[in-house]
Amino acid sequence: MSDTKFDVLAVGNAIVDVLAEASDAFLQEQELVKGAMRLIDEAEADTLYAAMGPGIEVSGGSAANTAAGVAALGGRGAFVGRVHDDSLGKVFAHDIRAQGVSFESETATSGPQTARCLVLVTPDAQRTLNTYLGACVGLREADIEPAEVAASKVVYLEGYLWDAPEGPAIFASAAEAAKQAGREVAMTLSDPFCVDRHRAAFRDFVVGSVDILFANEDEVKSLYEVETFDAAADRAVADVQVAALTRSEKGSVICRDGERHAVDARPVKVVDTTGAGDLYAAGFLYGYTAGEDLARAGTYGSICAGEVIGHLGARPRANLKALIAEQLG
Amino acid sequence: MSDTKFDVLAVGNAIVDVLAEASDAFLQEQELVKGAMRLIDEAEADTLYAAMGPGIEVSGGSAANTAAGVAALGGRGAFVGRVHDDSLGKVFAHDIRAQGVSFESETATSGPQTARCLVLVTPDAQRTLNTYLGACVGLREADIEPAEVAASKVVYLEGYLWDAPEGPAIFASAAEAAKQAGREVAMTLSDPFCVDRHRAAFRDFVVGSVDILFANEDEVKSLYEVETFDAAADRAVADVQVAALTRSEKGSVICRDGERHAVDARPVKVVDTTGAGDLYAAGFLYGYTAGEDLARAGTYGSICAGEVIGHLGARPRANLKALIAEQLG
Repeated sequence: MSDTKFDVLAVGNAIVDVLAEASDAFLQEQELVKGAMRLIDEAEADTLYAAMGPGIEVSGGSAANTAAGVAALGGRGAFVGRVHDDSLGKVFAHDIRAQGVSFESETATSGPQTARCLVLVTPDAQRTLNTYLGACVGLREADIEPAEVAASKVVYLEGYLWDAPEGPAIFASAAEAAKQAGREVAMTLSDPFCVDRHRAAFRDFVVGSVDILFANEDEVKSLYEVETFDAAADRAVADVQVAALTRSEKGSVICRDGERHAVDARPVKVVDTTGAGDLYAAGFLYGYTAGEDLARAGTYGSICAGEVIGHLGARPRANLKALIAEQLG
Repeated sequence: MSDTKFDVLAVGNAIVDVLAEASDAFLQEQELVKGAMRLIDEAEADTLYAAMGPGIEVSGGSAANTAAGVAALGGRGAFVGRVHDDSLGKVFAHDIRAQGVSFESETATSGPQTARCLVLVTPDAQRTLNTYLGACVGLREADIEPAEVAASKVVYLEGYLWDAPEGPAIFASAAEAAKQAGREVAMTLSDPFCVDRHRAAFRDFVVGSVDILFANEDEVKSLYEVETFDAAADRAVADVQVAALTRSEKGSVICRDGERHAVDARPVKVVDTTGAGDLYAAGFLYGYTAGEDLARAGTYGSICAGEVIGHLGARPRANLKALIAEQLG
């Protein structure tokens, strides 16, 4: 591999999360499915926001969280995504850069406002996501610079991005640039509903272009429409080089050819599960691009996921590099 | 007393806090005085923000935090302050209303953006405040409605507001409306540097118009330019009906004529001291306007302050009413 500028170039929706505590009764009133992500338009966002309790704003976005995690581990992370030139857009850009992530995407000066995800955290620490994509839908294939992809060990794509008008073109363009440069393509399936919306397209992309697949149990079972985790894992490993499959408190399983590595979840008091998968991917990719073996990369993922679910918000607060040194020596 | 619409009408700066962790070395580099509040202009705000770590945005503002606390206790709170019609302004308005506070002040559609306070939280849980007042400076005497003051048991004014161009006129107008209606005027001295900027004017206002004075030890000593807490308390009680004086981990002392009631601080793991004084005032005023005796009102203050310093952000997260019932029965 020639010299690289980034370990991980993450591409996804640039979102500010608005976190508020909510009761199960509130979810029922609003007819929300606990634990899922749904897309809402601006009017729905305004209505739900007006009904919600007081919030805390924290930069989020799935792939952006992963990029932030890679940087917090001491890796070289970059992010591509679109914000509007408004106060939440400035918050997003500040936070990701302050974390040490390169973020040079063009800012929208017209059109919809910066994206928000209204996150309802129930007393069981589950989060229910309601995303107004706003400026994100303006991300263009032209925002992917082939030279940046070529300068990154891994380009990481979030499944959520497939909902944007140019999402499929962005995926294709990033995969093509990676292939040309001999780089690897990683993808997260993001959410079971997202898999439902785009199953056929996701299967094509996974088998044709993905080297490293991230998914949780529900997502990978949904992708292949099979009943059991093991059946889904078998299918995944036939399609990609490496499948890193997460199972909440049961930990994760990393599969490659004949290999299966089960990694335990870290014991932690769960406050807010937002970002667990994103930080698992950050830890895994940091370890993987540093040349660690799959089991150790998976352990990095577990430690990072354990940190982020111990507090509100989907970006790491602790120095993840120090945390790993402390836990693994 | 005739019927009232509000227990507490709070008047102050409408601010969104941007909280970030910072090291002592960072404060030194930026030449910041730990624990103090300083006013900064937009350019300074941009420079400091660019140098800061990733943040969390939470609605704040001293008097606004107090109004939120009164509402979280089950009291009737209202707030008067000025935001801009931008995304952080919408966040501020949403959060305070979602807490159950009446907030009907006019929104600015031109001029500076919604105010931000860049809060640096050091590992010792102290906070250092850097406030860009933005739209707050546009609060006008006309924003104080005498009928609203007349319909409130107490009008509560934050010393910080004196920095706004019409601050002194707002104080005078609120005090006059309260006097006409036979209502009480409460004031917090806000900050030792704020007292330094306005000492003579504050002394005049306190002796001429204030019924209930809130201050911490440093502030009240600075107001009267005396060396000891006891000397400052003697001076305060000569000027006002009730002085509620806080002393951090040493608790508070509430003074009226010959009475002195010492109230212990609640034992709590301190995470972020932002909002401690504001929530103390909320608890005290809630108890006071409900007709509780001074010692019990002070205990409410201690419990509320203890809740808010146990987490990041200056607004209560717990149901304060339930918390008081649990701790005091």
